[in-house]
Amino acid sequence: MIVLGIDPGTAATGYGVVSDNSGEPRGSLSLIECGVIRTAPRDALSVRLAGIYDEVCAIIVRHRPNALSIEDVFYAKNVRTTIVLGHARGVVLLAAQQQGLSIAEYPPAEIKKTVVGAGAATKEQVQFMVARLLRLKSAPQPNDAADGVAAALAHLMTYRAPRIEAAR
Amino acid sequence: MIVLGIDPGTAATGYGVVSDNSGEPRGSLSLIECGVIRTAPRDALSVRLAGIYDEVCAIIVRHRPNALSIEDVFYAKNVRTTIVLGHARGVVLLAAQQQGLSIAEYPPAEIKKTVVGAGAATKEQVQFMVARLLRLKSAPQPNDAADGVAAALAHLMTYRAPRIEAAR
Repeated sequence: MIVLGIDPGTAATGYGVVSDNSGEPRGSLSLIECGVIRTAPRDALSVRLAGIYDEVCAIIVRHRPNALSIEDVFYAKNVRTTIVLGHARGVVLLAAQQQGLSIAEYPPAEIKKTVVGAGAATKEQVQFMVARLLRLKSAPQPNDAADGVAAALAHLMTYRAPRIEAAR
Repeated sequence: MIVLGIDPGTAATGYGVVSDNSGEPRGSLSLIECGVIRTAPRDALSVRLAGIYDEVCAIIVRHRPNALSIEDVFYAKNVRTTIVLGHARGVVLLAAQQQGLSIAEYPPAEIKKTVVGAGAATKEQVQFMVARLLRLKSAPQPNDAADGVAAALAHLMTYRAPRIEAAR
């Protein structure tokens, strides 16, 4: 099971590709790739959207994830920013749909709750747990990349949970 | 000059393709096609977005418009509805960008002001003027289609205006 996690944004879209090898002998969660898709503020929105779409398509082709786990963003302080963010989410969802990924959307607080244990966790706490769960020496940088990885982890851990419960 | 006008929505995206033949002997604005792209409310957002994207791509391939004129929607009563609308706008902008159209965005009030002469025009007034400008027996139905056509007209009339001014 490979999951592409995405924290969408028009300026910076963080992503993380995480695999769950729990079927294997030393099975565990491992980070395949993470990073940030950046677009230029001087470019038209349509150009920036095409940039995000192309990059997401390339990541999907590169790693063939089974699922997309994406931050759900429906309550923001700045309405205009949030609506522009909706455009970015739209092209990410389109790319995933076109390439046959299953799609899961999680509110930011739910991602934090699953990964850290607290919906109101700080960025530092999320980064700490992302590094710990994936046995990394340090958290993925910048923050956006770590948030993308956290989205992927949240999905994998949500699916794992019942099995852990069942084993107890 | 052929313009694709779009009034985006997740449930119903109205569109109109209008040509400006002002270079020809009996040159005038004429309606090439209009309609509504509908998506099923029971489908996942990603499926609906893919449906809108595919249809817009097909319309562009069919008529090869030079420009996309799309309603700008940044102030809505319901924030959640508006953000979902942002997703739909995102895939429409992506389709136009990928196929090399120039892109113009107009606030709804500016479209009404250009087509009817009043930014606070009613739907009936917009429909009346759309039918009149295109010499149609009746306004395009349903409303969403008429709004798409109005967006296309607004763009063509905005470009025409300087020439009319110059001729006076």
